[in-house]
Amino acid sequence: MKQILIKILPLFLGGILFSQTGRDSLQFKNISDEMLTNGAAYENLRDLTQNIGHRLSGSAAYEKSTDWAVQKLKEAGADKVWKEEVMVPVWERGKESLHIKTGKGNWKALKMLSLGNSEGTKGKNVEAEIIFVKNKAEFDLLPESAVKGKIVFFNYAFNQKFISTGQAYGDAGIYRRSAASWAGKKGAKAVIIRSLSSAFDDVPHTGMMRYDQDDNTKIPAVAIGPKSADELEKVLKTEKIFARLNSNCGMKGEKLSHSVIGEITGIKDQSVIVVGGHLDSWDVGEGAHDDGAGIVQSIEVLRTFRKLGIKNNHTIRVVCFANEENGVRGGNTYADNIRKNNEKHIFGIESDGGGFTPRGIALLMDAGKRKEVQSWRNLFLPYGVHNFELQYAGTDIEPMEKLGVPLGELVPDSQRYFEIHHSEEDTFDKVNRRELLLGAVVMGQLIYMIDKNW
Amino acid sequence: MKQILIKILPLFLGGILFSQTGRDSLQFKNISDEMLTNGAAYENLRDLTQNIGHRLSGSAAYEKSTDWAVQKLKEAGADKVWKEEVMVPVWERGKESLHIKTGKGNWKALKMLSLGNSEGTKGKNVEAEIIFVKNKAEFDLLPESAVKGKIVFFNYAFNQKFISTGQAYGDAGIYRRSAASWAGKKGAKAVIIRSLSSAFDDVPHTGMMRYDQDDNTKIPAVAIGPKSADELEKVLKTEKIFARLNSNCGMKGEKLSHSVIGEITGIKDQSVIVVGGHLDSWDVGEGAHDDGAGIVQSIEVLRTFRKLGIKNNHTIRVVCFANEENGVRGGNTYADNIRKNNEKHIFGIESDGGGFTPRGIALLMDAGKRKEVQSWRNLFLPYGVHNFELQYAGTDIEPMEKLGVPLGELVPDSQRYFEIHHSEEDTFDKVNRRELLLGAVVMGQLIYMIDKNW
Repeated sequence: MKQILIKILPLFLGGILFSQTGRDSLQFKNISDEMLTNGAAYENLRDLTQNIGHRLSGSAAYEKSTDWAVQKLKEAGADKVWKEEVMVPVWERGKESLHIKTGKGNWKALKMLSLGNSEGTKGKNVEAEIIFVKNKAEFDLLPESAVKGKIVFFNYAFNQKFISTGQAYGDAGIYRRSAASWAGKKGAKAVIIRSLSSAFDDVPHTGMMRYDQDDNTKIPAVAIGPKSADELEKVLKTEKIFARLNSNCGMKGEKLSHSVIGEITGIKDQSVIVVGGHLDSWDVGEGAHDDGAGIVQSIEVLRTFRKLGIKNNHTIRVVCFANEENGVRGGNTYADNIRKNNEKHIFGIESDGGGFTPRGIALLMDAGKRKEVQSWRNLFLPYGVHNFELQYAGTDIEPMEKLGVPLGELVPDSQRYFEIHHSEEDTFDKVNRRELLLGAVVMGQLIYMIDKNW
Repeated sequence: MKQILIKILPLFLGGILFSQTGRDSLQFKNISDEMLTNGAAYENLRDLTQNIGHRLSGSAAYEKSTDWAVQKLKEAGADKVWKEEVMVPVWERGKESLHIKTGKGNWKALKMLSLGNSEGTKGKNVEAEIIFVKNKAEFDLLPESAVKGKIVFFNYAFNQKFISTGQAYGDAGIYRRSAASWAGKKGAKAVIIRSLSSAFDDVPHTGMMRYDQDDNTKIPAVAIGPKSADELEKVLKTEKIFARLNSNCGMKGEKLSHSVIGEITGIKDQSVIVVGGHLDSWDVGEGAHDDGAGIVQSIEVLRTFRKLGIKNNHTIRVVCFANEENGVRGGNTYADNIRKNNEKHIFGIESDGGGFTPRGIALLMDAGKRKEVQSWRNLFLPYGVHNFELQYAGTDIEPMEKLGVPLGELVPDSQRYFEIHHSEEDTFDKVNRRELLLGAVVMGQLIYMIDKNW
């Protein structure tokens, strides 16, 4: 047996081990094997979602999750773990309800969620007739007299034709962000939007809205599920409908919070590679795909480098960002601090598209660096990762773009994400262990290559 | 407006419409848009799984599903629909149970499923000590005296390291197929195998086994879930464990059944393109991913060609095969009949990997034809379909290989399939509407290209 090995090994090793690509390919497999067999990400996500649950920034649950992240980063083998101070806005939901009725009918409750950052009705009933528009163009045609004193219902549907649901989300996003200010400026009492959802169910989805700077009306904005939206539109074509909104949400100032950071020190220099996600979530569901997945995948990368004893040249730093959902204060503060401290960052990647099977890596960097990463494509293909054409970065790391840091984002399969995103449905049971771990595998592999080559 | 269109259109059309690739690309989008917005596949699958449910070949439910398929093919716009006679084996499960206990302990029930085609205990208790092996190599080392009169437990685990779970399934498959004959020939009373599952739960998975031709023992074979398997192995390392199996399954002869076929006639010639899946399922769960998905996707292709008014040169034929799961009689009969009738087939594709996001198309054909299909790669990339390297075809259409028919299979993302495959968990709620429809989109697009070019 020994003799055979001695004869065969040199041939094998010559072809595989002693070529650079061969060595990289073996390290890719080591990372993948370790995560798929011993990966902690799935059990960590179970712990985060089941024992803490949703964790809106500014909430007690969020603060609890920062202690959780410190603990998990230590368990994963980080050399240093710390909390970075971040001032975050505090938005609270409180009790809320939306009822509708025809002129003579009875009030009927609709499933609804106030949009994040929206003001509420301060616990008072706000009643008005609903007027309905399909989109902004239809709304723009309405005179102020038609809008004043009404509740405006925007029923702009998620476009099923896009293959990437992220494109449909981008397409419909302006209604969630801006409809309140459009309607407020024409004197509306409130807006109702159709949830940004690819599903055909009745689940309402929240998400950040904002009031225009010149909007002093700050009317309440709420979302209803796709089914309710379809039914409401149908009835509104033949009948007058009145709505009664009662909500208590609103901004409650700011407070001191934290991002959580852990790293393994580089053996060559002090420059940093960031891998991260955001620790906060909306205040419904469990924040499992958004973005518990990105957090546990990032910690998994650190755990695996330590476990495999990979000697990283540069510091590999996991950042669990605060307040992505309603302010991006964690991301902005992090970028401010690295500029203040004159820290050199050579790369940053975020996972914030859900813990689904990875399909590609978006690259936001100069053409030369992008080409270099694309030249590693054949190493990634056996892991199903084929798309290196997209050019963007995660919301939390994007503030580093102006500092010239090459950035990226993991691109998972997008088909299921917007069924559950920002809703009660974003729960641990929607996450598949292997899909989640494969996302961590790909980030680990990319960081291995960048650490070695940049 | 008209004037602007007249000025712009020629430029646009010159670049896009009047190039062949441009026209194909538009047709790809037409197919995709139609299915993603008006597709019937998801509601058809709901109907099949909720109103008929699982449908083992030979069962009354299977016969009901053939009427259902006839109806759906007519609704989709087929010119001709018929049933093709197929003799199928009849295997029935009946009541079954597996209990274990330590020497002094109490009997404890394990979740279990007899493997398909296995003989049972004829309703009698079969009790024996369990002996445990990790794999075939360990089993081969055991003398007959160690096996005789015992129940052999093979705990060969699904290898999580494979990126494609289909490879892990292939790797572990021999235990399900052959363990009973291995153990029977050494005098064992029964075998227990670890289910072929990527999950870490306790769901047992059935699936076809077979007795070797020289195996006259035909001992019962059952599967237990991964958790039970792990626990059993753990206890067996320190204690003697006895098992008591009671089952009523077995072969009940043969009966006349049917595959269901529907087609839209080609305008140019009588040659046929087959698109299909298998209508039968195992007798647990709902046969949703396996292979209700393939059935409704295939019907969706026909519906969409008709709806869009695509004039197909060749006949496009949907085949809903009988008896894939425990005999492949539908596939074999179909191939026999086209040879007997001297029908020309230019291509066949099957969907039998679940209704998950499509990743590629496996191609089983001569190198020239494979290269031609691969040359269409850029048309498929916007739909996330990138892998044209695999060389195999669906089980039901594979018998056409020896007739020289170029074949393929849709390659969906494989990460979740083997958690639910052949188990109680293969239910409609595990299927995502968009993922399912995208699979139909890709088959429709490929058939459009082949119909036009071959």
